[in-house]
Amino acid sequence: MITVRALLFDTFGTVVDWRGGLISRLDEWRREREIAADWPRLVDAWRMAYPLSLQRVRTGEREWAVLDELQRESLERLALEQGVAGLDGAAADEMVRMWHELPPWPESVAALHRLRARYVIAPLSNGHVALLVRMAKTAGLPWDAIFGADIFRHYKPDPETYLGASALLGCQPHEVMLVASHPSDLDAAAKCGLRTCYVSRPLEYGAGRVFEAIPEPARFDLMVDGLEELASELGC
Amino acid sequence: MITVRALLFDTFGTVVDWRGGLISRLDEWRREREIAADWPRLVDAWRMAYPLSLQRVRTGEREWAVLDELQRESLERLALEQGVAGLDGAAADEMVRMWHELPPWPESVAALHRLRARYVIAPLSNGHVALLVRMAKTAGLPWDAIFGADIFRHYKPDPETYLGASALLGCQPHEVMLVASHPSDLDAAAKCGLRTCYVSRPLEYGAGRVFEAIPEPARFDLMVDGLEELASELGC
Repeated sequence: MITVRALLFDTFGTVVDWRGGLISRLDEWRREREIAADWPRLVDAWRMAYPLSLQRVRTGEREWAVLDELQRESLERLALEQGVAGLDGAAADEMVRMWHELPPWPESVAALHRLRARYVIAPLSNGHVALLVRMAKTAGLPWDAIFGADIFRHYKPDPETYLGASALLGCQPHEVMLVASHPSDLDAAAKCGLRTCYVSRPLEYGAGRVFEAIPEPARFDLMVDGLEELASELGC
Repeated sequence: MITVRALLFDTFGTVVDWRGGLISRLDEWRREREIAADWPRLVDAWRMAYPLSLQRVRTGEREWAVLDELQRESLERLALEQGVAGLDGAAADEMVRMWHELPPWPESVAALHRLRARYVIAPLSNGHVALLVRMAKTAGLPWDAIFGADIFRHYKPDPETYLGASALLGCQPHEVMLVASHPSDLDAAAKCGLRTCYVSRPLEYGAGRVFEAIPEPARFDLMVDGLEELASELGC
């Protein structure tokens, strides 16, 4: 029996569809402006650059910077490498802001409402508070609190994030569950004493593309196919 | 014309009725258990002890502690001073937790829903995140984010609170308005560059009792009689 008081959610990939959301917004640009690019290729490279840019902050190689800043730097470099013509500063800013307004997976909002009736729910994301607030307002995510990396000035998987959010909620680590579609994130949370729920998101990186192997059933406290199943497992 | 992007709210007194809420809960104890006390007298003394206990943290005289801990210490001392019989540890804990579940002023919830449609809204309170999350869930306060003093490890009126919350929202100080029923809180926010709105709460300390003089009209950007008036002033 799982008895936790609070659920923390990874956001990008777990709650919202970054790849589908970005590509769909960028497809609209075809009709609106003169920027030609292989958007899926650029978006995938951008996402791959993301953990590396966080890693440079985590190791102290570069000083603290919020995700927008890191994403902007990666995008400029990749647009140059991929020869994307016409991506000026304003367009790059707009692309960075698209991460603030990503669409939820189809069942996310309804499931979060169910979970919220019984648990404290909050994102624990490498996004910053301002990004997560904008995302919540756009997507209608009914969070009880917002934990962005800038509160802790640490990025996941640093323990300061998992332990910091648990402490702010007045909980012991074992009273908190991390919900995420990334086994590495969940492993780090488990090391800090949190309970863990793996959410399968087979479309996160595009159909048929997998970046972390699907975990063995015993590796985490729960394994679900979506947030509605999590709500049902937890009796909501 | 006032053009801000976010509104921060003092909570105790501004959004919720701490005195009425505590006294009403304690009155129920008459029927439930064997504790006799002059509850209004104890509650008023408790509230008076509050700024002094924060002050000891602010000056560094004592190390960081969340509000629950400070309130618990004050309560033990005051119960002894006022000769309250029967207030054991469990009852004192329960009284401390009453601050987590205070009732909103009659118009607070509806007005916050109006304001939320146009602005980012969040508490900026000397309560801690766990207290404010519980308060929001109990009272139905539709916050976009929760800023408790424990995020900053500073209590208002320290500038770290006003500037820290503005930065986490990705705002310049002049893009943020503090809404509060306490002129001293608003003065400190204004010194940090925030816009200010004074909310008149004539019943906060009980009918006819005033602890800070009603400010001159020009002292703050706005003066309103409640949060519905604020919503109307801001065109919500």
